[in-house]
Amino acid sequence: MNKFTMFGKLTAHPGKREELISLLLESSLSLNDMEGCEFYIINESVDDPDAIWITELWSDAQAHADSLKNEEVLAVIQRARPLIAGIEPIRLRPVGGKGL
Amino acid sequence: MNKFTMFGKLTAHPGKREELISLLLESSLSLNDMEGCEFYIINESVDDPDAIWITELWSDAQAHADSLKNEEVLAVIQRARPLIAGIEPIRLRPVGGKGL
Repeated sequence: MNKFTMFGKLTAHPGKREELISLLLESSLSLNDMEGCEFYIINESVDDPDAIWITELWSDAQAHADSLKNEEVLAVIQRARPLIAGIEPIRLRPVGGKGL
Repeated sequence: MNKFTMFGKLTAHPGKREELISLLLESSLSLNDMEGCEFYIINESVDDPDAIWITELWSDAQAHADSLKNEEVLAVIQRARPLIAGIEPIRLRPVGGKGL
């Protein structure tokens, strides 16, 4: 299996999580046409009021790398940056389970 | 949206990750018939040789809580315990995106 998963923990500046989520939801619309993106789900932490976790599943690592060259994606990253206090990316290889 | 997402970071004892993954893959078969479980994906970390991340999406938090009373699930937890050095659960509310 060559699929590629990326988890990203974003920590918003205090009070900015809602705004950051709105921006991410808006940007996720541009992924609907991107074939290599199987899912891109935005989650808010139950226990940490500033944390957002993004779960991404891509057909392969190259599809993910290519998405970062997309102009719409780059524009969102630019707009989101002032809202973000920290980013912790986690690179994963999905190995199986239900719903893959 | 009442859906419930759980991420779990499992750290295996050194050299035990493969064995733990096999056990988790086996146990995930019992989830195929569990309606409230939309996905349960087992991932291995690219950067940490002992880390496994599980991503779960449930129809609601109750479905997840109920699954922990399932005898097959409890039996697997029992067998997996000696292989696990640490568990870090992260409770999330999915808010949107592609593939939800």
